[in-house]
Amino acid sequence: MPELSPERKAFLAADYCRGFIRYCRIEPLEIKSGYFRSRVLIAEEHRQQDGFIHAGVMATMADHTAGYAAFTLVTEDRQILTIEFKINFLRPAFGNALECRSKIIRDGSTILIAESEVFDVREEETSLAAKATVTLMSVPKAKLLSKR
Amino acid sequence: MPELSPERKAFLAADYCRGFIRYCRIEPLEIKSGYFRSRVLIAEEHRQQDGFIHAGVMATMADHTAGYAAFTLVTEDRQILTIEFKINFLRPAFGNALECRSKIIRDGSTILIAESEVFDVREEETSLAAKATVTLMSVPKAKLLSKR
Amino acid sequence: MPELSPERKAFLAADYCRGFIRYCRIEPLEIKSGYFRSRVLIAEEHRQQDGFIHAGVMATMADHTAGYAAFTLVTEDRQILTIEFKINFLRPAFGNALECRSKIIRDGSTILIAESEVFDVREEETSLAAKATVTLMSVPKAKLLSKR
Amino acid sequence: MPELSPERKAFLAADYCRGFIRYCRIEPLEIKSGYFRSRVLIAEEHRQQDGFIHAGVMATMADHTAGYAAFTLVTEDRQILTIEFKINFLRPAFGNALECRSKIIRDGSTILIAESEVFDVREEETSLAAKATVTLMSVPKAKLLSKR
Repeated sequence: MPELSPERKAFLAADYCRGFIRYCRIEPLEIKSGYFRSRVLIAEEHRQQDGFIHAGVMATMADHTAGYAAFTLVTEDRQILTIEFKINFLRPAFGNALECRSKIIRDGSTILIAESEVFDVREEETSLAAKATVTLMSVPKAKLLSKR
Repeated sequence: MPELSPERKAFLAADYCRGFIRYCRIEPLEIKSGYFRSRVLIAEEHRQQDGFIHAGVMATMADHTAGYAAFTLVTEDRQILTIEFKINFLRPAFGNALECRSKIIRDGSTILIAESEVFDVREEETSLAAKATVTLMSVPKAKLLSKR
Repeated sequence: MPELSPERKAFLAADYCRGFIRYCRIEPLEIKSGYFRSRVLIAEEHRQQDGFIHAGVMATMADHTAGYAAFTLVTEDRQILTIEFKINFLRPAFGNALECRSKIIRDGSTILIAESEVFDVREEETSLAAKATVTLMSVPKAKLLSKR
Repeated sequence: MPELSPERKAFLAADYCRGFIRYCRIEPLEIKSGYFRSRVLIAEEHRQQDGFIHAGVMATMADHTAGYAAFTLVTEDRQILTIEFKINFLRPAFGNALECRSKIIRDGSTILIAESEVFDVREEETSLAAKATVTLMSVPKAKLLSKR
């Protein structure tokens, strides 16, 4: 896979955390060809009724980070759409942060497939809390915007 | 399926919108045995970089509402955990609100399965934007809290 | 959705049961635009070690029937590929036949999404045994064959 | 994870290939704690209408092999049921054999989660053709048989 230019990396890092992702305070940590890593520091508003981190935070992170792992492999005139994803929750998460690592396992011209692993970062240890498989589609930017 | 008591309905309605769900401003609309309907009015912070509603909002809503559809079928000493879910995005959503309808399609003593449909509510029309299948587990409340 | 021609229906019915599907003895029952229904009479070789019908039979049927539901909506120069599917097993199946009903819930020019319901047909009753969501892709026939 | 006894390995190897799995000629290759590897030599009856190996063969193999990976971790009085699985097809498979490697990524007392990778074995190379995530449930044998 080709190296990403510093400009493209900077663009993806800035583009990553807009709208709902900014609202959730999920941030990019590392960007490589076919790979994206992100983090969120956990506050009360990320938790659910029992004090565990809400599954929706993990799902949002797994989906969005997978999308940006796909973004590292397409040209600048293309956008990435999530067609579907599936996420398994392996154990309840209740740490101080989540970290998500997404990598592309199939890089096609139209369909890309990513795996996202969401880690629960606690003081004593870090453990895999959720794992997702995400099916993504690369579409010309012009076509996507016409759907609005 | 037995009728839900008004007290149980009131409890579930209040319990539904805490933590991350309150932060996302997702609200309960209707509660019946094996069924839960919710809504969110869309603001800028629910959207993604292109103006569409973020897939994470739909996924969070689909998961959480499915969980509360399951809650309507278990006794008060039990909690509901999401084991996994899968969500397909049928078309980009960009309306003023989302509505989610979750119903239980398998009501087991341990494993419950729900389907959630997320509708994009636009001025001119309402259309199905996403559909999820959610696998849930009913666990004794005491057991769950011991995991924290 | 347009009516299917009798010739197209006959072609799809014959094309449906070749190779592995013929080996599994799964047969078409009903074909409409965006809909396909199939059946298999259960013999010992469809069961697993405990006498239940093997999950693989249900998954095969759910996938293949979904694919042919998609086939009813594309032109004759196109093929259908399964990108992914997810199947939930609602209860063990042990009847004399399975019936599968697949319908398209999203009909796009590239991506189609189907739902398949697999019913366990027993003497006393018929009940839903499995439900699948299938993501399909319509590709030009010429392109697919070049991958061989 | 504890070592498996030779007797338990021999039992699982024999138990693996009964009913539908025997009919599909899928065979065990390697058994370890939390891991199972299987193979099928491809004949005409494993293919679909275009000569590719049918997705149903890969799904059956991914599910069944995941189940036996789970079997390596439970006591002899328990059975394994598939609750659900999701499988992504990465590229069309058309080789002379398929090999499946399943490993448990969450070993719980009730819920186990496995990943299965299905490889397309061609003369020139072996490549990943499909990847599945399988949610399994460990149940007392006596309870399962009562459902029949």
